[in-house]
Amino acid sequence: MFRYRLLIEYDGSPFVGWQRQDNGPSVQASLEDALARLDGSPVSVFGAGRTDAGVHALGQVAHVDLITERSADTVRDALNAFVGRSGISVLEAKRVHAHFHARFDAVRRDYLYRILDRRSPPALERGRVWHIPRRLDPERMHHAAQCLVGEHDFSTFRDAQCQADSPIRTLDRLTVSRVGEEIHIAASARSFLHRQVRSIVGSLSEVGSCRWSRVDLERALEARNRKACGRVAPAAGLYLVGVFYP
Amino acid sequence: MFRYRLLIEYDGSPFVGWQRQDNGPSVQASLEDALARLDGSPVSVFGAGRTDAGVHALGQVAHVDLITERSADTVRDALNAFVGRSGISVLEAKRVHAHFHARFDAVRRDYLYRILDRRSPPALERGRVWHIPRRLDPERMHHAAQCLVGEHDFSTFRDAQCQADSPIRTLDRLTVSRVGEEIHIAASARSFLHRQVRSIVGSLSEVGSCRWSRVDLERALEARNRKACGRVAPAAGLYLVGVFYP
Repeated sequence: MFRYRLLIEYDGSPFVGWQRQDNGPSVQASLEDALARLDGSPVSVFGAGRTDAGVHALGQVAHVDLITERSADTVRDALNAFVGRSGISVLEAKRVHAHFHARFDAVRRDYLYRILDRRSPPALERGRVWHIPRRLDPERMHHAAQCLVGEHDFSTFRDAQCQADSPIRTLDRLTVSRVGEEIHIAASARSFLHRQVRSIVGSLSEVGSCRWSRVDLERALEARNRKACGRVAPAAGLYLVGVFYP
Repeated sequence: MFRYRLLIEYDGSPFVGWQRQDNGPSVQASLEDALARLDGSPVSVFGAGRTDAGVHALGQVAHVDLITERSADTVRDALNAFVGRSGISVLEAKRVHAHFHARFDAVRRDYLYRILDRRSPPALERGRVWHIPRRLDPERMHHAAQCLVGEHDFSTFRDAQCQADSPIRTLDRLTVSRVGEEIHIAASARSFLHRQVRSIVGSLSEVGSCRWSRVDLERALEARNRKACGRVAPAAGLYLVGVFYP
């Protein structure tokens, strides 16, 4: 078997999420079907992050084992020929050693969340941003966000369906800044709980519109209780930007 | 009658273009239908630029006359309530004097053209960029482009269907630069000929891939002949960025 690492961009809108499911098209199934056609037998694709329905990726990473050895560029181009019109693009394929694991070897995952905080709805960025029809205060959000950086019990910011053994995670970076008409929230960690970024962003939006103070956010974290979480931000604004390996 | 100036963003993909036509939905017709519902009688919308099918706008300007006086914000919000899900967003409405004309008073129009020059197709920016699957040289393009700046007979870069009386136009600015994975071409002029920007961009792409030299571009301009034009760039990469008034 020959192992390849794939770098993948996708528009999450048409998919039920990364993971293969019975209720609709998934990114994983689209890639597995394309690779099976290329390799002539069933292929499993292992992704670094299982993004939810509607969540986008600029740099998802996955690994696959193929029976037939092909140049990495051939794998990339053949995959794009199969999936290129479905909202998936393979940016890079690379031969890697047989022990590389896209999910377990990752040491950092970077996410970006985009909020369009203006009165008028997005025309060009529909399905790409969370539209909040009033101005938020990014400095206030950034200042409050720093209380979440570091190792914490993130039970408050964890989906009820989260299957992780522990609610403890170490958030390495959480920054909020204005970029033109948008507010960008960047989050980095070795790993995230299910819907952790969207839960944090939802609560930060309460801070940005002055409904919550920094102390309210601290208290929500300390409550270690899902009920203390603010609203959960919609999937459309979330991007898996990159996955990093040693 | 009460005249309003509208600032409009739209995704050109679902439309046959700005102008009302029999063969499909247009931005103008969508706005006119919404305004007629708001004002209770037929309304004509006059746009600054008649963008083609698939061409986007970040800042189209139009004017309308309404029978009923309403606050500008009410006009904007009511319009967005009608057209907000169709790919159109009214960013601003403003009361203007009865002599303001969106098309004839404009002194400058800014266009942006986006090329994604990488091997893999766009996933997130499908329908938003022109995908050229090889690297172009933006410095070479920018250098050559300067021969088009100023007053020229642009017959070479004018669609056969162009209805302008004269092929003479003054191009105030034409810049080419790399922005991340994309090449951005910015063009400014008081007015443009039909498909002038897309014709110029198509020829510049020949320069960027080293099939044309700067001299070839100069000769194409001097030929004053549509047949001397390179390929015409697709609509999807073009944006009407802004329209300016004295």
